[in-house]
Amino acid sequence: MNHSNNNNRRRSGDEKTTNRQSYRQRTDSGNNSSDSRNSSKTVKKDNRKTPVKIIPLGGLNEIGKNMTAFECSNDIFIVDCGLAFPDAEMLGVDIVIPDFTYIERNQAKVRGVVLTHGHEDHIGGLVYLLKKINVPVYGTKLTLGLVDGKLKEHGLLGKVSLIEVTPKKTVKMGCMAVEFISVNHSIPDSVGLAIHTPAGIIVHTGDFKVDYTPINGKPIDLARFGELGSRGVLALMADSTNAERPGFTQSEKTVGNSFENLFAGAEGKRIIIATFSSNIHRIQQIIDCAVRTGRKIAVFGRSMVNVIATAIELGYLEAPANTIIDIDLINRYDSSQIVLITTGSQGEPMSALTRMAMNDHKKVNINCNDFIIISATPIPGNEKYVTKVVNELMKSGAEVVYEKMYEVHVSGHACQEELKLMLALTKPKFFIPVHGEYKHLKKHGQLAIEMGIPESNIVIGEIGNVIETDGVDMRITSRVPAGRILVDGLGVGDVGSIVLRDRKHLAQDGLIIVVIAIDKASNIVVSGPDIISRGFVYVRESEELMDEAKQVLNSTLAQCSIHDLREWNSLKTKLKDALSEYIYSKTKRSPMILPIIMEI
Amino acid sequence: MNHSNNNNRRRSGDEKTTNRQSYRQRTDSGNNSSDSRNSSKTVKKDNRKTPVKIIPLGGLNEIGKNMTAFECSNDIFIVDCGLAFPDAEMLGVDIVIPDFTYIERNQAKVRGVVLTHGHEDHIGGLVYLLKKINVPVYGTKLTLGLVDGKLKEHGLLGKVSLIEVTPKKTVKMGCMAVEFISVNHSIPDSVGLAIHTPAGIIVHTGDFKVDYTPINGKPIDLARFGELGSRGVLALMADSTNAERPGFTQSEKTVGNSFENLFAGAEGKRIIIATFSSNIHRIQQIIDCAVRTGRKIAVFGRSMVNVIATAIELGYLEAPANTIIDIDLINRYDSSQIVLITTGSQGEPMSALTRMAMNDHKKVNINCNDFIIISATPIPGNEKYVTKVVNELMKSGAEVVYEKMYEVHVSGHACQEELKLMLALTKPKFFIPVHGEYKHLKKHGQLAIEMGIPESNIVIGEIGNVIETDGVDMRITSRVPAGRILVDGLGVGDVGSIVLRDRKHLAQDGLIIVVIAIDKASNIVVSGPDIISRGFVYVRESEELMDEAKQVLNSTLAQCSIHDLREWNSLKTKLKDALSEYIYSKTKRSPMILPIIMEI
Repeated sequence: MNHSNNNNRRRSGDEKTTNRQSYRQRTDSGNNSSDSRNSSKTVKKDNRKTPVKIIPLGGLNEIGKNMTAFECSNDIFIVDCGLAFPDAEMLGVDIVIPDFTYIERNQAKVRGVVLTHGHEDHIGGLVYLLKKINVPVYGTKLTLGLVDGKLKEHGLLGKVSLIEVTPKKTVKMGCMAVEFISVNHSIPDSVGLAIHTPAGIIVHTGDFKVDYTPINGKPIDLARFGELGSRGVLALMADSTNAERPGFTQSEKTVGNSFENLFAGAEGKRIIIATFSSNIHRIQQIIDCAVRTGRKIAVFGRSMVNVIATAIELGYLEAPANTIIDIDLINRYDSSQIVLITTGSQGEPMSALTRMAMNDHKKVNINCNDFIIISATPIPGNEKYVTKVVNELMKSGAEVVYEKMYEVHVSGHACQEELKLMLALTKPKFFIPVHGEYKHLKKHGQLAIEMGIPESNIVIGEIGNVIETDGVDMRITSRVPAGRILVDGLGVGDVGSIVLRDRKHLAQDGLIIVVIAIDKASNIVVSGPDIISRGFVYVRESEELMDEAKQVLNSTLAQCSIHDLREWNSLKTKLKDALSEYIYSKTKRSPMILPIIMEI
Repeated sequence: MNHSNNNNRRRSGDEKTTNRQSYRQRTDSGNNSSDSRNSSKTVKKDNRKTPVKIIPLGGLNEIGKNMTAFECSNDIFIVDCGLAFPDAEMLGVDIVIPDFTYIERNQAKVRGVVLTHGHEDHIGGLVYLLKKINVPVYGTKLTLGLVDGKLKEHGLLGKVSLIEVTPKKTVKMGCMAVEFISVNHSIPDSVGLAIHTPAGIIVHTGDFKVDYTPINGKPIDLARFGELGSRGVLALMADSTNAERPGFTQSEKTVGNSFENLFAGAEGKRIIIATFSSNIHRIQQIIDCAVRTGRKIAVFGRSMVNVIATAIELGYLEAPANTIIDIDLINRYDSSQIVLITTGSQGEPMSALTRMAMNDHKKVNINCNDFIIISATPIPGNEKYVTKVVNELMKSGAEVVYEKMYEVHVSGHACQEELKLMLALTKPKFFIPVHGEYKHLKKHGQLAIEMGIPESNIVIGEIGNVIETDGVDMRITSRVPAGRILVDGLGVGDVGSIVLRDRKHLAQDGLIIVVIAIDKASNIVVSGPDIISRGFVYVRESEELMDEAKQVLNSTLAQCSIHDLREWNSLKTKLKDALSEYIYSKTKRSPMILPIIMEI
């Protein structure tokens, strides 16, 4: 790769001038305004320009909750605001969102939020942000359509300014401007960004893959990425999700070909396909196959119903009239005339497919006349759920196609050869791998090194890092608050490490409550000790253990002086220690022990 | 495949005679006794013989806790007695073992336990069985060496008769006899079984793979399986773990070749390799590489230390004197002179490798001079743990080789072509796929159908099924108790569904305890209501919520008559319902609510 300008400060100066020109051209074309008056002022003698700060607030060293702030002078804008799903140790937590502290503190500067696409890990945290600061939201039609549903749910509809954008368009964000560039991904209407800043152009790919034959006929705008590269890109921020995978990601069309063959083989049977509700091109291909084979379609699962409705309304999904039927009507048709599209491709316990598998679905009974396709790969952590669903479906006699069988799924993310292509097109001076765990970022960084970008020009950052560039250098200059905020029910941030630690303790060994009542005046125990346990042992079968535990408490109390009975904290500790020791010696378990003293 | 005798009752009669001859020959050769006196009695007119019952008690429709009973007339023997690891929903459970009810009820008939190899899923439940019934245990030298350690831990040493066997040997089990046949697997000294019964020969492969170039130079005894097949095998029970994978499992030697290359590339660096402690051939290859490159070896992790000690003692592992050094001495050597072998290849939270990754290991600090090889594939469910360890090791600057990179791991189980080979060699009349989830058993069954075994001769069973065969037919005739027993600390079976349900509830939303004291005589509330919560919200930041909750309880109590205060159960329900409703309305969470009434 010809990338000589990275190694040479002099030539890199030239590059900046090019960047600057490019910035002017793009903002011009986007806004029809001329800002040539500033051009001589900002180009300083040593080519250092007004610095731009890139502040990742989510999506680095993790999968999900993608969010990045871009700051220059008095302007900030945000790219994406996603959620993450809780880890196994985040017991009881529904979703995880980024820490918005830095944004809240600087809300006067915030010009808006720019969305790259409508997946939860890019838009799922947005409503929580909008409840804190009300700023305009920019996105493509489908992305905003999906945001709309979320605003409704959270009572924000009509209170937020949603501004629709299209690829090739540029919007001003104070002294910066954001240009939208069409990319391919597993949801339509995805865009990458060219962020035109005083320091130079920063390209952010968003989530992307290269699909030369996408279902909607709109391949990623490689030419524009190349044009930007020719003119000079200061920094590239690119999706690292598949950085460990060699080769190219297959076109979505290969899945359609597989469906064709499977539909032919499933003649006479009912076909049930589970996939991601947001994969609208996948759903379009199912609909097309159904139409070609004379089958009707019924849709199962809340999110599937919602997304399909939105997609049809906005023109992203086409189905001839009367092709999609009400789920209550499926029994009017022969099995061979039906396709069911459903949620549950990840084996989610409450999903429609899981309920079908467990014989717990009101409308669908699985039997040997069913041909089931799970058109998805299990997301790490979900393997066992998916396996369980597959086993149960097969036990009911159904034929099940899953995982890597017959190419019924392709990834939405670029593999190594596509990542190299993006690097080759944009020829960035600096490279910031984004969207991935450390191993992905590192691997992506190695690809960039192989392509000639000096290691010193690659920034593998952490959330909260302030990555600053003046067009000449790029470095991490400071830190801002960043982290994870746990959402549990309506509570946002009220479940922290102490609550989680307690939940974990309770989950592991249950609890034992010890209650005693002490007379205030005399300091005499007037009731108790009583013992109540939950999640520890089945008490009816462990009477002896519980009786002995009570004796341990009684003898502990008997050893206490009147003075001891006044010192409640130390009394509680004594009871707890005595009981804890006894229980451990008998069971090798350490339940949470909660002594409660009532004052009468 | 020439398998015509399956379709023809007449010819299948001939086959039985052959089986019978074979049975006699084998038991003769193993025991030097002549039982020809019985031969004319058991061969009935219609060729039906004394029926044999095959009773799987674990390992069907699940991975782990393998255990099967074989019963004929007044004799029972057991093949393997393993444990399973708990699912995510079995909160706080340490291990899962089979339900031994049927064996206990019939203990007078039990002649012994036969072990196929020393993995936990085949021997991990044994001590719990031996605590219930004391019967002889048969196994190869290494298997019994590993059992020995377990007996020590559980205070059973010297109380159990351990009988060492070698391949080609046959032992009597009442009217049945068990012949041991050498197989390859990921632990040395693994055997398959030919079970000679009055009804015919039943071949049980145990866990196996076909390795033509195993490290100990002892390939699976394919010839003997073929010999049995020629003489007539009534039923084959075969390992289904890899039934979904096409092709052949690679030889263990390929891993050695990878190690060679990686050791060469890691020159100057410290090498750390994590693998399964029981994979002694893998460890031998690491030792060999270390010796060739002039490195010393230190061993980390309790199970790794124990297994290596046992394997060296029994002659299964060879290391030149002074090759293995104490972990305290590693700092006396240069990095380039050291290899660390460690547990933690599954990212287990408390393992040595995980502690190294988290900078929490006393003896080892990971840095950029470390070259780390994770020589294992994540077992389903462990992917996220392994990934976390990899990320953390890389963040410390180490180079990490993991998962499918560079062939640093091969499976210990046969893939489809090997499974077909076993079917082709043994030519069984009946086929019972074992060791696997339903999808694996089903797939294995399909392979057998493709090879010409009629579907009606394939039994995909469940644990507890009594599969009966008289040499002519095979069918499921009844059920015996079977299931899973949860072990938590010292408790075996005292954690059941109610305890688990409570743990789950506590884990999801925590708990709120409400305490009030009521005067016995007057039925007046003399203290409380007090509220204590754990795992619900961080109370210091939710004072308002907790204050309001108390008000809700107070007003509920205020509405209670003296009579109401006497009916404690209904009073508890009222308090619980009122609080539950309030909490849900405010938080959309449903913590466990425990009302406690103290009588004064």
